[in-house]
Parts: sequence; structure tokens; C-alpha cells
Amino acid sequence: MAELDENVAEGAEPHIDAPDIYNEDGVIKPSYVAHIGAAIADRDILTLKQDVATLHQSELGDLLEALIPDQRRALVELLGADFDFTALTEVDEAIRMQIVDAMPNAQIAQGVQELDSDDAVYILEDLDEDDQNEILAQLPFTERIRLRRSLDYPEESAGRRMQTEFVAVPPFWTVGQTIDYMREDQNLPEHFFQIFVIDPTFKLLGAVDLDKILRTQRSVKIEDVMHETRHAIPATMDQEEAAREFQQYDLLSAAVVDENERLVGVLTIDDVVDVIQQEAEEDLMRMGGVGDEELSDSVLSTSRSRVPWLLVNLVTAFLAASVISLFDATIEKVVALAVLMPIVAGMGGNAGSQTMTVTVRALATRDLDIYNAWRIIRREMLVGFINGIILGFLIGLVAGAWFSPSIGVIIGIAMVINMFVAALGGILIPLTLDRFKIDPAVASAVFVTTVTDVVGFFAFLGLATLWFNFG
Amino acid sequence: MAELDENVAEGAEPHIDAPDIYNEDGVIKPSYVAHIGAAIADRDILTLKQDVATLHQSELGDLLEALIPDQRRALVELLGADFDFTALTEVDEAIRMQIVDAMPNAQIAQGVQELDSDDAVYILEDLDEDDQNEILAQLPFTERIRLRRSLDYPEESAGRRMQTEFVAVPPFWTVGQTIDYMREDQNLPEHFFQIFVIDPTFKLLGAVDLDKILRTQRSVKIEDVMHETRHAIPATMDQEEAAREFQQYDLLSAAVVDENERLVGVLTIDDVVDVIQQEAEEDLMRMGGVGDEELSDSVLSTSRSRVPWLLVNLVTAFLAASVISLFDATIEKVVALAVLMPIVAGMGGNAGSQTMTVTVRALATRDLDIYNAWRIIRREMLVGFINGIILGFLIGLVAGAWFSPSIGVIIGIAMVINMFVAALGGILIPLTLDRFKIDPAVASAVFVTTVTDVVGFFAFLGLATLWFNFG
Repeated sequence: MAELDENVAEGAEPHIDAPDIYNEDGVIKPSYVAHIGAAIADRDILTLKQDVATLHQSELGDLLEALIPDQRRALVELLGADFDFTALTEVDEAIRMQIVDAMPNAQIAQGVQELDSDDAVYILEDLDEDDQNEILAQLPFTERIRLRRSLDYPEESAGRRMQTEFVAVPPFWTVGQTIDYMREDQNLPEHFFQIFVIDPTFKLLGAVDLDKILRTQRSVKIEDVMHETRHAIPATMDQEEAAREFQQYDLLSAAVVDENERLVGVLTIDDVVDVIQQEAEEDLMRMGGVGDEELSDSVLSTSRSRVPWLLVNLVTAFLAASVISLFDATIEKVVALAVLMPIVAGMGGNAGSQTMTVTVRALATRDLDIYNAWRIIRREMLVGFINGIILGFLIGLVAGAWFSPSIGVIIGIAMVINMFVAALGGILIPLTLDRFKIDPAVASAVFVTTVTDVVGFFAFLGLATLWFNFG
Repeated sequence: MAELDENVAEGAEPHIDAPDIYNEDGVIKPSYVAHIGAAIADRDILTLKQDVATLHQSELGDLLEALIPDQRRALVELLGADFDFTALTEVDEAIRMQIVDAMPNAQIAQGVQELDSDDAVYILEDLDEDDQNEILAQLPFTERIRLRRSLDYPEESAGRRMQTEFVAVPPFWTVGQTIDYMREDQNLPEHFFQIFVIDPTFKLLGAVDLDKILRTQRSVKIEDVMHETRHAIPATMDQEEAAREFQQYDLLSAAVVDENERLVGVLTIDDVVDVIQQEAEEDLMRMGGVGDEELSDSVLSTSRSRVPWLLVNLVTAFLAASVISLFDATIEKVVALAVLMPIVAGMGGNAGSQTMTVTVRALATRDLDIYNAWRIIRREMLVGFINGIILGFLIGLVAGAWFSPSIGVIIGIAMVINMFVAALGGILIPLTLDRFKIDPAVASAVFVTTVTDVVGFFAFLGLATLWFNFG
């Protein structure tokens, strides 16, 4: 999360001496984990301070994930004030809760004070309200007000992700005055790329990039080099929408404003990168029928989160079975149909999910819109038809040789029909869901499978019934 | 791609007057597209320069995608030198090629000169070598050498994505000298967040962030505020690996060095964001059985790219069919088996793909490693078993009521077996593929489906054969 590279942040000596803790696959070396494990068991605080307290927050996060729960708690306890709280923003939620739950609220309050506000909020937002209040009560006034304000914004909003520390100056200052102010004020945020320009009521007037400041003569006024901020983000905006603004306009940081257009914080690209990745990941997980699971979830919560999806699919499966049962007399007569029918349904499902995957992703990235929808629908129909003919021909040949030529012809035709319908369903179903504001990543797969199963069985067994009963 | 917000870049007046071209869904307004289309048809250069030349590169990119091919070419031609070449980095590859192919090489050379080197490379790398050489030949010497060097690095390497413009100073300069240099030199890159420190041979010594410079007294020497760059990126490093470095250490920009550790360029977070998104997208596409497809691909190339995946699945489907055919005598006797068997196989497939999705994603993000693999395998086995019992019980009840109690029992047991095996396959198959350096996103689905189909049919029909023949 939020914090920038610590070395960079402090302009300090880098910890070149720290051993490289990763092997060539990017996994922490087992020997290193064993070494730390032994130091924890020995309560060897000296070694831990030397080898762990110097790690980068993300390295410490990886280390915490590699340890077992008891070791995690012991390590945090042994490090005491040397434990880098930002590492908690680098581990997954269940592990974070485990560590934080074992800590007294006073220690959390202490640790949280050293964090940037966005990291502090990230840790606090998952705690229950009583703990939150108790921790906030132990913070200095300004800090408390700032965090409270962030926490009051809705979950997953820009207000929750923003950093409330920023540099803001009045428009009538000169570049020289601004530089002098930055040289003297010790209370600046650890990192910033832009200086904001505000009026006395904190209303946002504009921004200046640091490189612009450096390139400008000292006597020039800030208002003459600032640019109006076209992309100020309302604090209540959903983080995904904010991330899209960043991507569209290649922003590095953006002002966050309240409903009166007063500057309340700044959103930076490093927070947004996480949101972008999460979003792409969410689509993948939803299409695979899993929700917001984390690797550290327990057996029961995993089971509970996956059963609903399976139940929905069960209804589909029984629907398909009832289509088959319409034709049980024909199957009894020609048992080869039972052998071959899963091929028709299954291949339709595969083709449908190809089209669906492309469609869902294109909708998410907004590449698919009214301007190309018809062209893409036409293309998918043609692709479905062509691939249906190729696959139908092949399957027909094999099935014809295996059973009889007439079965080969029947399965070939059924394949063409099902692949065509699969393509059509693969694009129209996500488009329709999207139109009705239902997330196509969640619901498309069930509908597409239903269509390809039902049509596949119906076409194949129906054609066979016609052929063998009336042919 | 690479370019930062233009307004910000030039510190210029923002184009507040530009109409908001998007509707509330983030799609370009049809009325705006029609307006531009009419202006193109009328060859109304004045309107186009006023309404199009002022757009942000990404807005112009969206507009180009909304137009039909003839309009795209006409628009670029009518705008002439006012066409913002960076917009070409915002459209998909097929559309970019279409526009660039219609342009004389001289015009491309002209346009490319105005771009940052990373954007120029992005456009040039897709051209064939003859065109590339012809365009490069028309560029000034330094420009040509720079682009050539980037293009000589392998595709998808950091060297291809880096910007070759950067600010570098010697370590013995003072902060004051550095600021004065930046105020006077007109040849600075459009945007930068770090200043690099090099020795006379261009060997990288360190870097200083701009906010550090602004906070430091003029008399301080650069070597006293610089930090050694721990995360210099070799130019030959794969862009995905470079992106992971950025994510792990929350970098904003990183020095790119050649094999002699000489500074050759700088990689910035905005390029990396695209790589991160592409990577997550790739996994999604691969799991859905589609490759590097683009929406603008033709029918034939789409069909060609999807058939191989379908053929692989076809082999699987015939394998499953041959399992069914082992039991055709039983099916002939109890046709209900044919009706129900797709349920067992299909539900196993769904459960397997849930586990597989989680596993593939966790492998990609490196959240799943030797430290938690066994725990996750145990968890998945338990989840599979529990969900198998839940689903098996339900299916058994329904099937028992529909056909006969004995069929209910058989399908219930078969479900437990298949869901358990599905879970095991869903995690072990991607893990094994990953161990053998095969991309689990591509190959897992086929193997998992094969396992759940074969085991599903075998368990259900096998149990039924035992029951009805010997029961």
C-alpha cells in the first residue's frame, strides 16, 4: 500500500547490507525463514532488530506471511517499537487481523501515529467500531480528526484511500517563498509530487508539479505557474472510478475535494495501482465462481462462500438433465447418443466461454461500447459458425467412424448449431446483463452454460429422435 | 501510455472550454461523434482543429476508436501537424496499424520526433523493419541513436518501455547548482520526479527525489542527499518482472541500466500500470481459452486463434465419451443414468474451476508459495469434501425423488468423490504445471476438466454398474 520506498523517502543510506531474502523465483529463502524462526524461538531481540527491523515494509510483509501465526505474534511483540506498522498494509486481511487482534489498543494507537493517514485508515477500517474509537481516542487531536474524516467516507471511496497530508500554498506566494517554506517546515508529508494552491477557505484553485517549481525563477508567482486541476476527485467517488480517472489521464496524484470543493486530501498513484490490480483480479475470480476469497480464509468460510455458486449451477444442471429426459426413449434405443451427448454440450460451453471472456473483459475496460458492439456481435456469430463447421466436421468424422455415419451427420449438425448459439450467447448475455447494470463477470457463466447445455442436448437428441424415429 | 497529463506537463491553461465528450457511463457521446463525423465529411478543418486538436490524448484515442476506418484516416490527414501522435499509444494495435499504414513514412518521422522516446518506440516497434529503418533515417542523429538502442532491446523488455530522456548530474554539484541548471536548460524531459547522479562514464551512482531537492539548502552537495539506487532495472529485464519490482517497492520511477551499469533510461510508473493491467488481463483471457486477441481482430484471425484451444478440449471430450461407452450396457438398462450423468461431471467441473481460479491467481501474485502450499492443499481437500457432502446430499434427494432411492444414493456418493477429486485437481494441477514452468493459466482448465469428467462419469456409472448388476 501507500507508503513509498523508504530509502527514497528518507534519502537515507540504503540497507545494502541486508541479505537478499528472496530466491530466484521471488520466494523468501527457506534458510532465511528458518534463521528468523530460530531467533524468535530464542527471543534473540538483537538478531531480530538487526535482520528484520531493516527490511523494507513489503519484505517484512512477505516474511510475516511465511511465518506461522504464533511466530508472527511473537515477532511483533519482540520488535516492539521497532516493528514497522506499514508492513501490515502488505499482508492479507486475515493475517493483518490476527496480528492486530493480538495487540493492545494502546500499541496500535502508537503504531498508527507513525503512518501516513492512508495507511492508518487501511489498518483501522477493518477493526470493529469499539476498537476504532478506543484507538482514535488515544491519538493527538489533529491526527484523530483527520482519520475520523477519512473513516466517515464510504468504504472503497476515494476518501478512504486518500492521504490527508499535503502541501498547499496561497496563489500570491512566489516560487522562491514556496521553496523557502518547504526548506523550513518540518511538518511536510514524507513524499509529494505536487503542491496545491488554495484560497483562505481551503477551496482548491490549482496545482503545480515539483519539476515546474524547480524550472521556474524564484520571483515568479505561484498563480502564474499553477494549472487548474481538471481532475479533482470527489471524496465520495468510488475508488474504481478514481482509478479509471488516473488511468485515462495518466495522473500521478490528484486532489481529493469535499462537496464544497475544498481540498481534503491527495490520492496517489501507488494506491491506485493496487485498486487497478484488484479490479482485474475481481473479474477473474468472479468468472471462476469465487468471490472475495483470500488464501488465509478458513475451511468453513471458504466452503460457505463457494456453495451458493455451486447451487446456482445445480439448477442449471437439472434443467439440462430434464432436457435429456425428454429423449430417454431414443437414448434407450441408441445408447451411442448417451456416449456422445456430453461432447456437444461441453464443446459448446468451451466456445461460449471464449466469447464470454473476451466480452466481459472488453466491457470492464470499456473497449466494447455502442460504437463497435454490432461489429463484434457480427464477428462472433461468424466465428462461431466457422468454428462450428470445423469442429462439427471433425467430430462428425470421428463419431461416424466410431458408431455409424448417420450418427456422424447428426452430431456434426448439432455441433454447428450449438457453437453458433454459444457464440451468440457468449456476447449477448454479458451485453444484456451490463445493460441492466448486473455485473457480467458474476452472472454470465451460469447463463452461457445453461444455454449451451440446453441447446446442445436438445439439438443433438432432437435431431437423433427425428432421424431414428421418422428417418 | 507514457505521456503524463498534458495540462500538467505544460503547466498551461487547462482546456476547460472543451465540451465533456463522455456520457455518464464513460462512453463518448454519440452526438459528439456525429458532430465530428460531419466535420470530417465537410472537410471542415477549422471545427476539427478547434474541437479535436484540443482533446487529451486518451480522449482523442477514444474518439478514433469510435470512428469508422475511413473517418479515422481522413481525420488524421485533415489535422495534419495538429494531430497528437501520442493518441496512437491509446488505441488498440489493429487500429494503430491501420492509421500508421495509411501515413507516409515522412509524416510518421515528423510525428515521432515530438514524442517521448518510450511512446515513439511503442509506435515504431510494430512496424516492419524496412519502414522502421526509413523512418529512423529521417530523424536527427541523437534521436535516431536513442530509439535504435531501445528497439535493439528484446520485445517486452524494460529497455523497450523506458524513456531515454532524463536529468543526470555529477555527485559534486550542489543543490543550488542543480536547481540553476534545471532553470536554464531548455532540453529537459517534459516530466521527471527524480534526478540521477552519475560518474563521467555514465555509471549510475544514485538518485535524488525532487521533493528532497526542494527541502534542502542550496549549499548542500548532491552526494550528501542522494540515495543509492537499490532498484536499478537492467534494460533486458522482462517488463513484467520490472512491474513486480515497482509494485513490491512502491516505486514511482526507476533507473534503467545497461550491462555495464551505465544509466540508459528511466522507467516510470505510468508505463508500469499498463503492464500490471495487461498481466492480470492475460491470466483471465488464458483461463477463458483465448489468447492475445484484440477486439479489432478480423473474423478469420479470431477463428484461427480460438480453434487450437477447442481442439485440445475435443480430445478431452472424446476421452470422457470413451469412459461412458465402457458402461453402455448399464445405461441401456437404466436410462436415468444418461439423464443424470452430466450433473455429476458438470458440478465437479464447476467446483474444480473454483479451486483452480484461486490457485492460478495466487500463483501469479506469488501469494501461494512453499510456505502455505500444504495448508492450502489441505484446506481445498476439506472444502471439496464438505461441499461434496452438501451438494451430494441435495442432488441425491432430488434424483432419488425423480427416479429411485437407489439412484439417489449412487449419485450422492459419486458427487462426494468427484467434488473431492475436483478440489485436489484444482490445486495440484496448477501447482505442478507451475513447478514445470508451464503457465498454469493456459493449461490448467483442460486438465481439470479432463479429471472431473473422467472421474465423474467413472464414479457414477461404475457405482451404478456395481449396484444394478451385482447389488
